[in-house]
Amino acid sequence: MANYKLTHIDLQAPRTELHDLLNLTGMELSFNNLPAGGAVPFVHKHKENEELYLVLAGSGTLFIDGEKLPIKAGDAFRIDPAGCRSLQAGPEGLTQICIQAKAGSLESFTMGDGQLVSDGPQPEWVKKG
Amino acid sequence: MANYKLTHIDLQAPRTELHDLLNLTGMELSFNNLPAGGAVPFVHKHKENEELYLVLAGSGTLFIDGEKLPIKAGDAFRIDPAGCRSLQAGPEGLTQICIQAKAGSLESFTMGDGQLVSDGPQPEWVKKG
Repeated sequence: MANYKLTHIDLQAPRTELHDLLNLTGMELSFNNLPAGGAVPFVHKHKENEELYLVLAGSGTLFIDGEKLPIKAGDAFRIDPAGCRSLQAGPEGLTQICIQAKAGSLESFTMGDGQLVSDGPQPEWVKKG
Repeated sequence: MANYKLTHIDLQAPRTELHDLLNLTGMELSFNNLPAGGAVPFVHKHKENEELYLVLAGSGTLFIDGEKLPIKAGDAFRIDPAGCRSLQAGPEGLTQICIQAKAGSLESFTMGDGQLVSDGPQPEWVKKG
């Protein structure tokens, strides 16, 4: 079995969910393009998962627990499972990714979980020595 | 305590890590811009975390377990903890996000973990009834 799975998605599509396309086991990622004035037509919360949103283009409004916040490209926000949330796109539309992962599940990351590999095959751009 | 935390990042910066900026507990996300010909100068694997990469712009090469694959905007790939990986940008540079989460930690998602909220405050874009 290969240690990877690759797919190609349309970055202009209204919504693409990666979990099933890639057999993800620790997260779900959706890539979302809301047209100008479009909105998530409901408020929702989660049982166990935190959500991370990253706005890639456009602008809009985040509704969270009765509060409304303007959001724009470059904004990133984490929402606790209990947060009651919804989104609306502004006049430019809103391109955002949303990632779900179980709150509290990450034990370590980057330098804590990663391990350098120098004893196997290496690409030409990795300098030896 | 608010159920959210929001930050703003520079989408043109070489690398931005969100874990500490947002107090993430289930994942880490890095936003990366590699310049033309730039590369991750090492091969690495992980102890526990799967990684999901999404290429947002440009193109390059994924090195995985001795294999080299061309990658371009719209490509998304999951890598098992054991996969030995590195990346190089092509002549246009490479913009990608990489998310780490503990492999096997996601118990449910979207309709399984999400819950509609209709009994609290609602934004004006959610229709009543």
